Amino acid sequence: MSMNIKENRQNILYDKDSETLYILDQSLLPGEIKTIPIEGLDRMIEAIKALRIRGAPAIGIFAGYCVYALSLPLCEKEDRLALLREQTEKLSEARPTAVNLAWACGRLMKCAEDKASLPGREWSEALYKEACFIHEDDISKCRAISEYGLSLIKDGDGILTHCNAGPLATSKYGTGLGPLLLGRERGMNFRAYTDETRPLLQGARLTSYELFEAGIDETLICDNMASFVMKKGLVNACFVGCDRVAANGDTANKIGTSGVAILAKHYGIPFYVLGPTSTIDYSCPDGEHIPIEMRSPDEIKNMWYSKPMAPEGVKCLNPAFDVTDAELITAIITEKGICYPPFSESLAAIREK
Amino acid sequence: MSMNIKENRQNILYDKDSETLYILDQSLLPGEIKTIPIEGLDRMIEAIKALRIRGAPAIGIFAGYCVYALSLPLCEKEDRLALLREQTEKLSEARPTAVNLAWACGRLMKCAEDKASLPGREWSEALYKEACFIHEDDISKCRAISEYGLSLIKDGDGILTHCNAGPLATSKYGTGLGPLLLGRERGMNFRAYTDETRPLLQGARLTSYELFEAGIDETLICDNMASFVMKKGLVNACFVGCDRVAANGDTANKIGTSGVAILAKHYGIPFYVLGPTSTIDYSCPDGEHIPIEMRSPDEIKNMWYSKPMAPEGVKCLNPAFDVTDAELITAIITEKGICYPPFSESLAAIREK
Repeated sequence: MSMNIKENRQNILYDKDSETLYILDQSLLPGEIKTIPIEGLDRMIEAIKALRIRGAPAIGIFAGYCVYALSLPLCEKEDRLALLREQTEKLSEARPTAVNLAWACGRLMKCAEDKASLPGREWSEALYKEACFIHEDDISKCRAISEYGLSLIKDGDGILTHCNAGPLATSKYGTGLGPLLLGRERGMNFRAYTDETRPLLQGARLTSYELFEAGIDETLICDNMASFVMKKGLVNACFVGCDRVAANGDTANKIGTSGVAILAKHYGIPFYVLGPTSTIDYSCPDGEHIPIEMRSPDEIKNMWYSKPMAPEGVKCLNPAFDVTDAELITAIITEKGICYPPFSESLAAIREK
Repeated sequence: MSMNIKENRQNILYDKDSETLYILDQSLLPGEIKTIPIEGLDRMIEAIKALRIRGAPAIGIFAGYCVYALSLPLCEKEDRLALLREQTEKLSEARPTAVNLAWACGRLMKCAEDKASLPGREWSEALYKEACFIHEDDISKCRAISEYGLSLIKDGDGILTHCNAGPLATSKYGTGLGPLLLGRERGMNFRAYTDETRPLLQGARLTSYELFEAGIDETLICDNMASFVMKKGLVNACFVGCDRVAANGDTANKIGTSGVAILAKHYGIPFYVLGPTSTIDYSCPDGEHIPIEMRSPDEIKNMWYSKPMAPEGVKCLNPAFDVTDAELITAIITEKGICYPPFSESLAAIREK
């Protein structure tokens, strides 16, 4: 099954023949590439909590298959709906901050209720279709984003990325990495430069793994080397994902993204943000209104290291995200098309599409 | 002896009473603060090779005291000059790229020859004076640089620094950190923001240690958080050291420095380079002519980490330095004064001073 996931570049695979849900265990990357079966509610919850599966869209997809799998042993029972609801509620609480988890669980439960009249296994099969739809919908949105992104670059280009906006965080292709992976499938060659992305090293651990596995010419750099590669003329465009886009185009993404955007502007390199329209928060007027999560100093001073890397009493500031001002963004690429400045107009226009 | 070094904020101390050379073992920082005696040629060479003492000016100072210490058991011998030369040559080869090491060894040997007529212990004492002069000369240059730097900031300012340009790399005060340490001695309060400085973490390991020990309000950040703290209005000025300044003001310093300078320009924050005039290479017309040392991928992918942080085959680019264009530098601060743009004129002017 490992090869299958790898070939499809997917982090989640439901094998219908054996009725088994497999995931690529992201907590082991990049040291160990291991596909593990996830069976039973306890293992499902543990997989989310232990970050074996991560990335909000990916967790949503995973949850869809989980609810289907949970329905199988219940489908012939009288009180199957109540039993499934009980288990699904526990699953949806595994990680309360990931909106997609509760969203997918709710969607599957609504389907279970709507199809309550179907007999036994047919009821479960309806849930399988719903889970597949969530998965396929994410793939199709990522593919559309990738197509639009690919239209902006050409064979041989050098692309710099920050953090991880690839298939591991979503479904096939991903967002920020989508144009590279789609282009590679079509035989195009890019030179990718990946910021390692301190402190949690998503760039080194996940992005460089994904691009390397896809056969893309991948070079890992420390975050502070982005200016060096840009100055050398090695970078033709920057592609990054996003966590929340305000109505005016200000974009929250992994810490360090705004610095990359400022360097790109200095060197005259286009800077593109890629994400589904669900990431656009039309109720949020600008970046000032996006709350920034502050995390533990331990991630900077101790995590990953074999010994402490700063005196014990030293303070750390550890913002998980920063806001890139709209003026620094060349275009925002969604599944509905490419939005150019002024973003307050172009983002409003695709809302109606 | 440990307290004495700490109080003086010095990395090297020669204790004349016990005729013992002590250093703060930098290879153990920040986990262990340990002052160790260095006796005999083999231990001296090992201390340099194992980076127990590092920073070109610091190595020069260390070498001066080493040559004096080596002369003591030889001073009554007939062939003392030949014996000392033999040992000094071995010492000067401990780290061939550090110019100051060979320079200090050469300077001490010249003194030994000039004073060859002095009897026994008097000959050694002449060498001690020479070693002390090298040490004091560095302190006085660092103090002058610190005074000039301090004139550019005010009490309560937030100062961002990158890498380590403190006392550990030089003598007392340092260059980039000098204004903060001198100001602190005078009761001023600054808020220091220190880039951790990947991959070798000189900021986290050495700078945050030095500032914390000096009682300065110190906040450690990852390199990619500099934009965040600047945007928040927390930074009033940037102070960095330098490895080579070209005649036009282009400055090579630790990788990531040019990125900090670009961010500072974007946010309208002054960016200052601090270093002795010996760092100005008048024979080098501009940054294009400064060679950049490329180092091992292992420093990015494996060093410090408890496990590999990227797939084994992934390439890394690991430049140890980058060049900050003169146009991004507000001023270059030397022991002879503050140079403003155009640097080709202001740097030429202080050459004659």
